Amino acid sequence: MLDRHSALGNAPDAASHGSATMTVPESVSLWAPLEIRIDGPSHGNPFIDVELDAVFTRGGADVRVGGFYDGDGIYVIRALADAEGAWTFETRSTAPSLDGLTGTVVVGSPAENAHGPVRVDGFHFRHADGIRHRPLGTTAYAWTHQPDELQEQTLATLAESPFTKLRMCVFPKSYLYNTNEPTDFPFPGSLADGFDLERFDPAHFRRLEKSIVTLADLGVEADLILFHPYDRWGFADLGPAVDERYLRYLVRRLSGFANVWWSMANEYDLVSAKDTAEWERLAAIVGEEDSFGHLNSIHNCIPFYDYSAPWITHVSIQRVDVYRTAENTDEWRERWGKPVVIDECAYEGDIDQGWGNITGEEMVRRFWEGAVRGGYVGHGETYLPAALGRDDETLWWSKGGELHGTSPDRIRFLDQLLAEAPDGVWNPLPGDWDVPWGGVAGRTLIGYFGFNRPRFRIVLLGEGEWAIDVIDTWGMTVERVPGTHPEGSVRVELPGRQFMAIRATRIDQATT
Amino acid sequence: MLDRHSALGNAPDAASHGSATMTVPESVSLWAPLEIRIDGPSHGNPFIDVELDAVFTRGGADVRVGGFYDGDGIYVIRALADAEGAWTFETRSTAPSLDGLTGTVVVGSPAENAHGPVRVDGFHFRHADGIRHRPLGTTAYAWTHQPDELQEQTLATLAESPFTKLRMCVFPKSYLYNTNEPTDFPFPGSLADGFDLERFDPAHFRRLEKSIVTLADLGVEADLILFHPYDRWGFADLGPAVDERYLRYLVRRLSGFANVWWSMANEYDLVSAKDTAEWERLAAIVGEEDSFGHLNSIHNCIPFYDYSAPWITHVSIQRVDVYRTAENTDEWRERWGKPVVIDECAYEGDIDQGWGNITGEEMVRRFWEGAVRGGYVGHGETYLPAALGRDDETLWWSKGGELHGTSPDRIRFLDQLLAEAPDGVWNPLPGDWDVPWGGVAGRTLIGYFGFNRPRFRIVLLGEGEWAIDVIDTWGMTVERVPGTHPEGSVRVELPGRQFMAIRATRIDQATT
Repeated sequence: MLDRHSALGNAPDAASHGSATMTVPESVSLWAPLEIRIDGPSHGNPFIDVELDAVFTRGGADVRVGGFYDGDGIYVIRALADAEGAWTFETRSTAPSLDGLTGTVVVGSPAENAHGPVRVDGFHFRHADGIRHRPLGTTAYAWTHQPDELQEQTLATLAESPFTKLRMCVFPKSYLYNTNEPTDFPFPGSLADGFDLERFDPAHFRRLEKSIVTLADLGVEADLILFHPYDRWGFADLGPAVDERYLRYLVRRLSGFANVWWSMANEYDLVSAKDTAEWERLAAIVGEEDSFGHLNSIHNCIPFYDYSAPWITHVSIQRVDVYRTAENTDEWRERWGKPVVIDECAYEGDIDQGWGNITGEEMVRRFWEGAVRGGYVGHGETYLPAALGRDDETLWWSKGGELHGTSPDRIRFLDQLLAEAPDGVWNPLPGDWDVPWGGVAGRTLIGYFGFNRPRFRIVLLGEGEWAIDVIDTWGMTVERVPGTHPEGSVRVELPGRQFMAIRATRIDQATT
Repeated sequence: MLDRHSALGNAPDAASHGSATMTVPESVSLWAPLEIRIDGPSHGNPFIDVELDAVFTRGGADVRVGGFYDGDGIYVIRALADAEGAWTFETRSTAPSLDGLTGTVVVGSPAENAHGPVRVDGFHFRHADGIRHRPLGTTAYAWTHQPDELQEQTLATLAESPFTKLRMCVFPKSYLYNTNEPTDFPFPGSLADGFDLERFDPAHFRRLEKSIVTLADLGVEADLILFHPYDRWGFADLGPAVDERYLRYLVRRLSGFANVWWSMANEYDLVSAKDTAEWERLAAIVGEEDSFGHLNSIHNCIPFYDYSAPWITHVSIQRVDVYRTAENTDEWRERWGKPVVIDECAYEGDIDQGWGNITGEEMVRRFWEGAVRGGYVGHGETYLPAALGRDDETLWWSKGGELHGTSPDRIRFLDQLLAEAPDGVWNPLPGDWDVPWGGVAGRTLIGYFGFNRPRFRIVLLGEGEWAIDVIDTWGMTVERVPGTHPEGSVRVELPGRQFMAIRATRIDQATT
């Protein structure tokens, strides 16, 4: 216990109160979990029998944080240290020994590379400390349900990748190429023996938390999918009471981690046991238990959820047309007034399913079509192991492992270009009918040609003096056109290849 | 004059009637023009002053055919010989010397390779003799307005091409890469001196007719565009009276040629001088003057015309979405209940304009996306002459000349596969969400993978015994999977490349 705490904060202070022993860190760094651990009753079923929370006061504001039972008589209250200064708290519980405990924790300056949870910033995102976040996401739904060695490989791959967000399921996945049985589950039990839905498996959750912390170290947001339909264990239809208990437990455990996003469901419309009213109820439960405003959305198979719902922070779309998805990004921004993340536009790969056999070129094209329209497209990879000389079922999109595709390098290149824009984002700009233009009006204009391949283009420049770059989004080159260019039209020579872009950057103004 | 007639029929019979001398062929072959030429008054303005028509009786049915003034005192009545047997006629005219002339022409068996005008056959087309027509079209809008040498090159190129339909304008074209001035026009005059809109230039029309006859010899339908907006001569806004006179003159001259299709306009919505009521009026005039039921349609820039209008025989669409057009073919069949021809889906080339810089691969993909959904996509080519080492403005899409692209060979390959289907056509079949299937239900099933590139696919076969082919639509290969396959599912191995198709052909039934 002391070891664990020392990883989270400094110099834990163990205090005794009645029959309970409480461990409180003296200080934690900003954006770290602020965790109070209390020895309490272990008789009966503490998961259900005991209610516990704490009210923290920091900077004059109160925040309620629900506690959870971590097994072996240990109760935990885990806040996200989202403000510097002294935090005082007082516990409340149905168990007298856990009730009325008080203490103080000092929240100090953030650790290096800790920027806090991601917040919505107009049609884009920033970390709580103001640092820009661009969700260049990938997908490995069931990576935490795989053997340790494979999980380590996944993390090593992510460390080398350009991705800053990972879609991952809390529940295990039963689907094509997903037939292996996990060793443990959110609930104690097994497929063969059944599950005890009145208890949770704290060790399972501790492993999930460790994965989330490791992702944070890699600068990757954990986009946690709370429900999904790919199920052989019954987790897609636990019933309203268990769903609620599961959500409260999960959110209390995880909302103390800065890099957590909620996704209420993957393909919500395929979860036949839940209707819209139920999704709204469940989302409200997440909102109740999450005192730290993590992002939340919900992902469709076919019909879009109503993304105007107040609890939805951003649009999380799956392709609904085989041919045209990212090309709708700007329309969807207008429609819902929220950031647009196209979490699934199909995956780079070569499997038999139409959602998993596009080329790297097509994947990158979709990323760019979304980017110049001011949104964010997500990645996934589904190469057949057999064609790679393996006899396993390890496809990145679900189990993680290695990446084999050609798109990630180009996604990194795209991100570098985004980072070069003022404010680090592109918004859609008035375009040509055939070429979408994005960037920052009057400052940086990016026109993307996609599958078209002109040998030249007339570009109309506004007031000022401009530099022009010809960008090969696939070849990952930026070539500066000689000279500078005043207001008016300029003919830009292009190589007659697909996947080119033109960038015009105003150079007679200081960058703010 | 005799020479000209001998090209159209046999043994012309010159009869004198009052002051008029009439030349009537003794016989013509089925599907040829049946032409009566009469010497008549040349004073005043015969284009306006003289009305002339003839009522033909053949097989107990009457057909009225309007005549036209061909200059030099010659009046012509040109029917399309659409039924074998004896045709009798009697002329009617406001000029007494042209009125009440009678005669008989025998229509004999068709010339080799003459199949008659193309008619609608459900969602497809047939020649009047029942032979299947598949409109694999291309575009050379202004080819007849170019120098003779270039026109000859265009015809030589067409002779080697797979195309069976050519979109071409009656009026010359003023547009990008179309700045050269034609030597003559439908009306006498010039841009510098103005045009006499109360007369026509018969020599200009005779050259057009010669082009149409030459196309017929090549097995190419002339898809004649009657109005268009690309104009510097005033032809896009002649006013209602001149429009009407022009249409009556044109249709009377040309409806005797079996391989003529009418297209009321290209980009009708850009012809600002005409509204829908006016298009309806003009289409009615074409219908009045065309006694032989040539196909007629109208082509959009942005808003579709209402293709349910009774005079419209088939849908003639221009791409309205940069990303998705041919993929809508089956929906458009349902919407309008007529054959769908996507006459412009963009052109293979590399110019700066988004309508003219797709790759050969993308062009062929669009042809296939339309074909498996039971429709017909059209071709055009816009390679920059400079990039081909030339300093002219000759782009195939408008002026004709040579083809340089990679799509025509693959379009021929597609046509060969269509020809192999029972009845020579594909219709849309119940598909997978990600793969469109077309063909003939229970007989020939073609699934097209487009830009997706699976390494295998499970195909569900219905009753019977089937052969399976793996088709590389770009590589132009058909590989038979060994063995035959009974009802049920079969796994078909694919190469993991784009642009593949699978064809399943039922082999335990005789082809009807």
